[in-house]
Amino acid sequence: MMTDESMIREALAVAELAGKADEVPIGAVLVDGEGNILAKAANRTETDKSAVAHAELLAIAEACRLRKSRRLTDCTIYVTLEPCPMCAGAIASARISRVVFGASDPRAGAYGSLIDLSALPLESKPQVCGGVLAEECLAPIRRFFQEKRKQTKWK
Amino acid sequence: MMTDESMIREALAVAELAGKADEVPIGAVLVDGEGNILAKAANRTETDKSAVAHAELLAIAEACRLRKSRRLTDCTIYVTLEPCPMCAGAIASARISRVVFGASDPRAGAYGSLIDLSALPLESKPQVCGGVLAEECLAPIRRFFQEKRKQTKWK
Repeated sequence: MMTDESMIREALAVAELAGKADEVPIGAVLVDGEGNILAKAANRTETDKSAVAHAELLAIAEACRLRKSRRLTDCTIYVTLEPCPMCAGAIASARISRVVFGASDPRAGAYGSLIDLSALPLESKPQVCGGVLAEECLAPIRRFFQEKRKQTKWK
Repeated sequence: MMTDESMIREALAVAELAGKADEVPIGAVLVDGEGNILAKAANRTETDKSAVAHAELLAIAEACRLRKSRRLTDCTIYVTLEPCPMCAGAIASARISRVVFGASDPRAGAYGSLIDLSALPLESKPQVCGGVLAEECLAPIRRFFQEKRKQTKWK
C-alpha cells in the first residue's frame, strides 16, 4: 500500500544513490493523483555543475515533460529534505497540491524553517506535511557532510 | 557603453521575441563580471510545457552549463519583470551578486512586492535594483494579456 512513509522511503533510496555519486544525498519522488510514480530525481548540482539541479526541480521538469503539461495539479511531491525557496516556488508554479518532506532545513527550508512560502497567494498553496521519517532522511545528509569534513582535514 | 538600461533593453528584445511565440513576454540576460553576456533567455513555459521554464531559470541553467560551474558569483542578471520566488531562489542558489529588473510584479514578485527573498540569509544576498525602464518592460506583458482576453471573448 502506498503511504507517505513508503514514498519517502522511495525518495530516500534515490538520495542514497546520489550520495554514492558524491552529491548531497537528497531525493524526490513525484506521484500523480492515482498514486503512480511520475518522476524520481536526486540532487545533481555537482554532477551537472548546475545551481538549479535540485531533486525537486528535476522531478518537476521531468514530470512536465512526460505529461506535456506545465501543471501538475493532482500531484504530490515527496522529498527527503524541506524544499528551498527555489523548489517551493517551482512547486507553486507547477500547482502541485501536496508536499510531504522528511527532515526540516533550518538553513534554507521554505515551508516554515527559514520562511513559509506555502502561506503566500502564489499559483497554488499546497498542503504541506513535514517530519515524515525525519531522522532517517537527515542521517545520510549528516553522514555526507561529516565525511566531507574528514576529507578536508586530511588534505 | 553597457549600462543597466542597455542591458534591460537587451532583455526586452528577447522578451518581445517570446511574445511573438505566444509566451508571456519576459526576458532575462546574464552578464559576467567583465560585462560579457553569458546567456539570454525568455519565458518558455508554453513552448516547453514546463512549469520551471522561466527566463531567469533558463538563463542561469545555460550560464552554469557554459561555465561548468554551479556558482555565478561575479554575475548580474537583468530581467524585465521582478523575479518570482522560484527564480529569486535560483539566483541565490547560483550566488549571483546583482539583480536588475524592470517592472514590479505585485502578484508574485520576490524582491519586495509579494515577499522579499533578498533579505533572507540564503546562499547569497544579491544587491537588487528594480524599476529600470519599468513602463517599457510592463507594456508588452500588458499587451499580451489584453490580446489573450480579446481572443477568449471571441471563442
